[in-house]
Amino acid sequence: MKIEKVTAGLSIKRSVDAGTEEQQSIVRDIIQDVRNNGDQALFAYTEKFDGAKLYSLKVTQDEINEAYAALDDQMIKIIREAADNIADFHAKQKRETWLYTNADGSIFGQKLTPLDSAGVYVPGGTAAYPSSVLMNVMPAKTAGVGRIVMVSPPGKDGRLPAGVLVAADIAGVKDIFKVGGAQAVAALAYGTESIKAVDKITGPGNIFVALAKREVFGDVDIDMIAGPSEIAVLADETASAKEVAADMLSQAEHDTRASAVLVTTSEPLAKEVALEIEQQLSTLPRADIARPSIAQHGAIYIAATMKEAVRTINDIAPEHLEILTENALEYVKDIKHAGAIFVGRYSSEPVGDYFAGPNHVLPTNGTARFSSPLNVDDFMKKSSIIMYSKEAFDKHGAKIAAFARLEGLEAHARAIEARNE
Amino acid sequence: MKIEKVTAGLSIKRSVDAGTEEQQSIVRDIIQDVRNNGDQALFAYTEKFDGAKLYSLKVTQDEINEAYAALDDQMIKIIREAADNIADFHAKQKRETWLYTNADGSIFGQKLTPLDSAGVYVPGGTAAYPSSVLMNVMPAKTAGVGRIVMVSPPGKDGRLPAGVLVAADIAGVKDIFKVGGAQAVAALAYGTESIKAVDKITGPGNIFVALAKREVFGDVDIDMIAGPSEIAVLADETASAKEVAADMLSQAEHDTRASAVLVTTSEPLAKEVALEIEQQLSTLPRADIARPSIAQHGAIYIAATMKEAVRTINDIAPEHLEILTENALEYVKDIKHAGAIFVGRYSSEPVGDYFAGPNHVLPTNGTARFSSPLNVDDFMKKSSIIMYSKEAFDKHGAKIAAFARLEGLEAHARAIEARNE
Repeated sequence: MKIEKVTAGLSIKRSVDAGTEEQQSIVRDIIQDVRNNGDQALFAYTEKFDGAKLYSLKVTQDEINEAYAALDDQMIKIIREAADNIADFHAKQKRETWLYTNADGSIFGQKLTPLDSAGVYVPGGTAAYPSSVLMNVMPAKTAGVGRIVMVSPPGKDGRLPAGVLVAADIAGVKDIFKVGGAQAVAALAYGTESIKAVDKITGPGNIFVALAKREVFGDVDIDMIAGPSEIAVLADETASAKEVAADMLSQAEHDTRASAVLVTTSEPLAKEVALEIEQQLSTLPRADIARPSIAQHGAIYIAATMKEAVRTINDIAPEHLEILTENALEYVKDIKHAGAIFVGRYSSEPVGDYFAGPNHVLPTNGTARFSSPLNVDDFMKKSSIIMYSKEAFDKHGAKIAAFARLEGLEAHARAIEARNE
Repeated sequence: MKIEKVTAGLSIKRSVDAGTEEQQSIVRDIIQDVRNNGDQALFAYTEKFDGAKLYSLKVTQDEINEAYAALDDQMIKIIREAADNIADFHAKQKRETWLYTNADGSIFGQKLTPLDSAGVYVPGGTAAYPSSVLMNVMPAKTAGVGRIVMVSPPGKDGRLPAGVLVAADIAGVKDIFKVGGAQAVAALAYGTESIKAVDKITGPGNIFVALAKREVFGDVDIDMIAGPSEIAVLADETASAKEVAADMLSQAEHDTRASAVLVTTSEPLAKEVALEIEQQLSTLPRADIARPSIAQHGAIYIAATMKEAVRTINDIAPEHLEILTENALEYVKDIKHAGAIFVGRYSSEPVGDYFAGPNHVLPTNGTARFSSPLNVDDFMKKSSIIMYSKEAFDKHGAKIAAFARLEGLEAHARAIEARNE
């Protein structure tokens, strides 16, 4: 892992993974096939890609019951408590319709309406995370989305993991389908016999899922295209090297492409963290993932001042930021770009990954410059309301007509003047 | 124009214009050229596509001054007043950072931060609308975006229209560049010698601009891909056929692909509006555009009840909706999908297009099902804040570690347990 001094921030070149032309073409073909052949195409791809021959896509109540039986009661309680915490935090994000009346009697406003429907993609295999089910579904639920559909690729046994099914049930999802990949995205966007089309698709996936989401964008809404996960730790000499190292490794174990970065004003801490990481790696079950992640994408930057350190953090625009300094809360105001900010030593990133309440679906790969955590606004839309009064119309009608004529739009001007007689 | 009875809503098939493969390939080549060759590529494309040989892209103060001189003072005053109205409405949308403390001393919150930079695309030619400059720039301004860049293709004379320049200056844009098409989108996304890259690109454009925005999406944020403009009028027997027809034509004159639809419970009104449209078309300067628009995309639907009429409107999910009925405001609560709702006869659509304050950049082509008018939220992003207390950590740490182990993420569990000693 590189250790470097920073003196003038970082200049980072990033690019979204746009896939190869071959991958793009495969995805387009799959989408077209699903549009043409519906469920039949879904069954065929599920057999081909997931090795599962299914005759029905929808998860049954029996499967849900079996999933509950497979988890211990304590774990089910923890998932329920996490769901409640997530609901509590997201309820604070929810906004209401507002209207106001101007002095001239005109009424303006903004109407908030939940989406009719949303589809959540849950990846398969080792990345089938119950916590991601909660984090994607609860904001939609809180927004008031009427119909929430979940899709996830089955294992070779034609089943979904028990934790995923229990989390979906606790989150209140009624429609769970065993289908993944680009074919699942196509089904959510355009509908098949089994799966009714939705208005928005969220949730992470592999490159085929990401390309499919990009392809259907516009016909339906999507969330951001997710990239590999990142953490940056902002620490001074008061931080514990052991804790910093453990937190960096919790990111690194996700993916060899994940990145864990420390920015610190303390050279001794920098050295100690590097040693700690090596030591902790030696006993980590997923060291085969975490080790290359740290080697290729890990970094420790030493800054002369906290100001320089904060600037470096803003250049990184990390998905997760931990502030492990004296008076940690004071630095929050200086952070411009970060998906989630974890303040102080009791806010290790997993606190937010699983349990505290704020969302763990966060902008990756520097997109915190312009994107937000998944939130209730993502599942509601606005409509403007304009009720002009006669007084306002009489006062401003001629100006509006003049503006229309400046733009050469005579019918606009005449629509105003049609009211004059 | 077709006149039809509706009895069970409408089922509308829509698709975004994804362009031809040739167009997509042209756009990819242009983007790559701009990334490789910067300004030089911009000059070359501007000469090729716009017929203007430029040596500098940036609009000068002299050009701004000449633009003011070219408009009459009354018009400049109207543009200023419109800008103020837009600023007033959008200020009501602006939200602030919030934090709260739980009973266990944990602090959670959501930080709101304006984007560092935004780029506004303004189409050229007859679609170079000063009102669109205001509508795109003012929400960014209100959000507090630090750097707002505007791009627009010049005419053959190497200039931008006076109205566009004056509107940009009134809106406070400092950086205006004479470049359009896919090359302008590439410059905004990746930067050149003259144009520094931005974080988000908004504004409508032709198919090449739309494809370029789709291509750079992810590296920067974009607004929705705009389609042709639409109006739907919901009217009962109290509406004036003359006013309804005038409003429908104000939409139809935009584009032969624009659509104007009336949904009414009154068969006499339906017939009268059809006649009025013919009559008003006969004297309309842009009849060559409005006439095919009405013929191909215009429609009048007659519904037996207001309930059925409202259902039909929700199926259409129009960009603009006018409610011209008795007790018009009462129906607003029943409208689920519409970009902007114009209530009552004094709220002819041009009132909102130019002057009242709410945004005229609205979701088209049925995307009001999941999209919103351009608004201040589009130029701000959220960061979650999590400051867990020792009490919360002691109480919940073990549950969090258990959840992590359910997902097979041992380093996550250990990050929690590193705090235990």
